[in-house]
Amino acid sequence: MSAAVPSPIRLTPLPDVPAVAPGDDLAELIAAAAGSAGVRLKDGVLVVCQKIVSKAEGRLVALADVEPSEEAIRIGREDEKDPRHVEVVLRETVRVVRHGHRVMICETRHGFVCANAGVDLSNAPGEDVAVLLPENSDTSAARLRDALASLGHTNLGVIVSDTFGRPWRDGLVDCAIGSAGFAPVIDVRGRSDWTGRELQVTMTASADQLAAAAGILMVKDAGVPAVFIEGFLPEGEGCVADMLREPSEDLFR
Amino acid sequence: MSAAVPSPIRLTPLPDVPAVAPGDDLAELIAAAAGSAGVRLKDGVLVVCQKIVSKAEGRLVALADVEPSEEAIRIGREDEKDPRHVEVVLRETVRVVRHGHRVMICETRHGFVCANAGVDLSNAPGEDVAVLLPENSDTSAARLRDALASLGHTNLGVIVSDTFGRPWRDGLVDCAIGSAGFAPVIDVRGRSDWTGRELQVTMTASADQLAAAAGILMVKDAGVPAVFIEGFLPEGEGCVADMLREPSEDLFR
Repeated sequence: MSAAVPSPIRLTPLPDVPAVAPGDDLAELIAAAAGSAGVRLKDGVLVVCQKIVSKAEGRLVALADVEPSEEAIRIGREDEKDPRHVEVVLRETVRVVRHGHRVMICETRHGFVCANAGVDLSNAPGEDVAVLLPENSDTSAARLRDALASLGHTNLGVIVSDTFGRPWRDGLVDCAIGSAGFAPVIDVRGRSDWTGRELQVTMTASADQLAAAAGILMVKDAGVPAVFIEGFLPEGEGCVADMLREPSEDLFR
Repeated sequence: MSAAVPSPIRLTPLPDVPAVAPGDDLAELIAAAAGSAGVRLKDGVLVVCQKIVSKAEGRLVALADVEPSEEAIRIGREDEKDPRHVEVVLRETVRVVRHGHRVMICETRHGFVCANAGVDLSNAPGEDVAVLLPENSDTSAARLRDALASLGHTNLGVIVSDTFGRPWRDGLVDCAIGSAGFAPVIDVRGRSDWTGRELQVTMTASADQLAAAAGILMVKDAGVPAVFIEGFLPEGEGCVADMLREPSEDLFR
């Protein structure tokens, strides 16, 4: 059995999302941005950057309200970081996987392994505000998908993406931290390959490949918080939590 | 300073590449496949999967000719793998970064960290042939780019991609193992972000994002060994070797 050759894929940036504030209706803002980009949000995958999801959900912490712990003060001194930022990072962290070179690689409450537990200061509405990851970004993706469906945008996959570093290579790549409406990992184990041999282990992390593709258009200073991917039809079920490896099966924790 | 909103990107699969054998002229085969897909290979990035590059370069080892070492026999026994396959993996490896769960994560001679040093048995022309990574996949990319330029396909970036696992997450993603004709990492440090704050550290691993995007169309059993990405204009210089992190700066080696 061999799959059909896939169709071309088109990625369109949706730049016209205004500055997002807590309580904003993201579905309406994105639907409007898609309209002004001439895109029909249907039969494809919408990738939305974490930052605007977190802002709409009010996942903001004013550093002025944060009392840093002794540990945060110590790490802040070592890393030349604001100890209040470090404190917010530690509160989001279940385990510091690595600490060195002035970087904290944290396992977050959600199970992501990333720098600073995903807590970011850049692009925040004020100098002294930390933006946290959504409480549950799979739920955020599902909620956005439902809201878009009720606006008539159906057969849509939704990804919430964030920009992560990785071991061994310089540079950041966009990664899925939440998804809804399709299988984030395509399992082709047991299908045969081009020469008829059975493929042994091939699970493709589609959600991450789609997030990385959208990331090409989400260059930080161009103001593109969402990208629509046309031609990849959402199939199957699942969410990003399903694709996080169990710590016990992981060789790098 | 803020960058312009990027243009849409279009990814087209180039399925019509015939089975590749050692000595084949990859540029001619790919140019022909692009022609039959109605694609002009120009002003964009071509992503070619490692497997056909390795085959064209004759990077094949018949397992019948391999004498496994004692170490290979021991690991083969532990991991239930063909010890001759393990032997080929060890010959490509400068350091076994992790070994467990029947997986060898190796640092290759090139500096990649990946399962089995990139040595693959699936999709090989015969049951008993191992396909090795190219000797130097940046050189492979540059050679292919030059050959395509001489056929009239100019202003082209070229990526050689392979499918890698990663820590912490299930599923594989396509990654750049060689590139030519553009900067594989875009450095936006020092540019200002949406709110005017200076971005502190933002280096985007464009080559890997482009490889991952192409990977969406390179699903293993669909026979798509190359993808053309239109709308991402190749800019700058460099190659994948430049984006590999120094072991001394790496927290996971």
